[in-house]
Order: sequence, then structure tokens, then C-alpha cells
Amino acid sequence: MPRTVDHAQRRAMIAEGLVRLAAREGLHSVTMRAVAAEAGVSLRLVQYYFETKAALLHATLLHLEEASHARWRERLAALPGPVPARRFVEALLAEALPTDERSRAFHLVWTSYAVLAMTEPDLAAQPFVAGPRRLERQLAATLREAAGELPEGADPAAEAARLLALAHGLGTSVLVGQRTGDSAEAVLRYHVDRLFTRAEPA
Amino acid sequence: MPRTVDHAQRRAMIAEGLVRLAAREGLHSVTMRAVAAEAGVSLRLVQYYFETKAALLHATLLHLEEASHARWRERLAALPGPVPARRFVEALLAEALPTDERSRAFHLVWTSYAVLAMTEPDLAAQPFVAGPRRLERQLAATLREAAGELPEGADPAAEAARLLALAHGLGTSVLVGQRTGDSAEAVLRYHVDRLFTRAEPA
Repeated sequence: MPRTVDHAQRRAMIAEGLVRLAAREGLHSVTMRAVAAEAGVSLRLVQYYFETKAALLHATLLHLEEASHARWRERLAALPGPVPARRFVEALLAEALPTDERSRAFHLVWTSYAVLAMTEPDLAAQPFVAGPRRLERQLAATLREAAGELPEGADPAAEAARLLALAHGLGTSVLVGQRTGDSAEAVLRYHVDRLFTRAEPA
Repeated sequence: MPRTVDHAQRRAMIAEGLVRLAAREGLHSVTMRAVAAEAGVSLRLVQYYFETKAALLHATLLHLEEASHARWRERLAALPGPVPARRFVEALLAEALPTDERSRAFHLVWTSYAVLAMTEPDLAAQPFVAGPRRLERQLAATLREAAGELPEGADPAAEAARLLALAHGLGTSVLVGQRTGDSAEAVLRYHVDRLFTRAEPA
């Protein structure tokens, strides 16, 4: 009997090839052929799974996003439950800053994609902002449930928006060498200290 | 008598050509030749002023930064002096969001440059983070002087860092279509409301 092909695994392998290439040479210089070579598969296989380069880039973003969420869930699972909102937020932010190879690749590919999408209609047509939007809604819901831990008058939706925008802005400043990862973490900690001003429920 | 050549004006003209090209086709596809054509000058003239493409890109960033600072100063000059710290910050933030063609071009070129610099050593060698660093120091100094208007325990350096990172993160989210300019402005206003919690000095 022939072995069943694990399509998900192959797609992930190709996406990982793209991430390594983009981290080394920049997303703008990535081609279907170069990704195939990097992933150790044929160009035809890449074309079988991804019809266009835009589709491949988009699938890679989703792959990175899923991997990031998985690491976030792992961090949360390692905490004694139920997890207070502050720990939930801290686990998310620890994952967001590009302070290791994985999160650096995610930030670099996401930002490169964003920049390319601004001038390339094919890329702009992919719903790549769905991920950040989902994450912001999820964070706002968590903060809404934790309203008792937030300062008086805090707006969970606005707090979610500024947390994620802040993390993204700090992430870029780390990637370009404007500040160190430690300095960015300190600014995030400063922010979180001001977000959770009330004592956590016992 | 021959007319004196205005070198500054010519350099600005070339930089403006690059900005138009980058906004239309992406910074990664910009060449010295294409910039010359867009600016309506010869390739040799571009090469006379800018030895390398990295030098041209860097000069364009400085050009955009100066123009942005000039617009910020204009906004400040329009206010009745002495300008309270809150108005100073608001004028800066109004300039930072990519809600018009000029600030959109600045944000796009800056972010594109940042992404390219992550994988291209020639670009990374240019001191392009000097501008953001200068701005952050200037903002921290203003907030230090306005300590009486800030919440108790606020750290002016951390406040400057999070204001600029927040503005950058929101700016990117506007450029990629994740949120509207109005929504980004509302988040910034929310942030500034929380930064200046004490009444302004009379």
C-alpha cells in the first residue's frame, strides 16, 4: 500500500523554506523556484500546492501566525489556571517581540508582506489583515472579562488596539536596531503595569 | 554670469522622484535609472549627487524626515504660545499617522527601508535609526519638562518610547488597511487622554 502523503506537512515544509529565504535575502527576492530549492522539493510540487506566489506568501503568513498562536498557548498552558488577564496579556506580548529566531522571522515576513501589499494588488487582495483583526478581538474580549483589573474608565477595545500597535511598533524598532529587545520589553512591562493598576482578584 | 546651481533643490527633486516611484511600485523596485527618469534628470546627475543606491535611499529618508519636521513646526507655530506639552505631542502625532499623501509616503518609504535594511548590509550600514532616536529624545525632554501634567510615577523616557512605538504601529495598521485613519486617531487620542491626566497649568 502506498504511504499516504501528508499534505499539511508538505505545505508547512514549503512555507518554512520561504521563511528561511525571506529572513536571509528579503521577501521581495523570493521566487517560487528559489523556495522549492530551499525546501528541497520540485518547483512543480510548490506549484501544485500554491497556484501563485501571492497565495504562497499568504499561506506562509498563516503558517507563521498558527505557529505563534501555538507557542502562546504553550506559554499559557504552563501557567497554573485559571490564568489572570495580566498573565494572558504577558504571554501574548512575550511572543510578539522579535527576540528569537522564530518571532524575528514572523515579524520580518509580516512587515515585508505589508510593505509589498501596499504596492502590489495581487498581495493586497489576500485577506492578510484577518489575523491581526482576530487577535485584537480576542484580546479585547479578554480585557472586557477582566474589567475589574483595569483602571476606571478603561475601554477594552481601545486597550487591545494600543497593546497590539505598541507591540508591533516596538517590534519594528528592535528589528531595525533602534532599541534592544530588553529595552522594548521594559517599555511593554511599563505599559502593562499601567494597564493592570488594580490588584488581581485573589 | 551663469546661474548658480541650487544643489539642495536638485537633491530634493531627485528624492521626490524616488518617493513617487516607491509609493507607486515599492521601494525594492527602485533603481538609480528609474529615479532619474521620474525626476526628469539624467542618470549621471543622480550619480553625481548620490554615489550608491543606498546613499540615495538614505538621503531620501532624511529629506522626508526634514519635511515631516517642518510640517510639525508649522503646526506648532500656528498655536498660541507658549505651547503646552499636550499640544506639542498632539501636533507630532497628527503628523505621524499616514492619513495624507505626504505622511503615507514617509511611512511607506521608512518601513520599506527598514525591511530592506534587515537583509541588505549596504542599507543597514546607513545610520537611518538616528532620526527616530533623535525624535524620541526630543519628546522625552518635552515630557520631562511637563512632568507636572503627567500621572504620578510616569517615566518621561518610557512615555516617549511608547508614544512613538504606538504611533508607528498604528500607522502600519492604517497603511495595510487593518484600521481606518479615524480609528487610529481615536486610539491615539485615548492614549494622550491617559498620558495627560492632570489639568494643564493655567
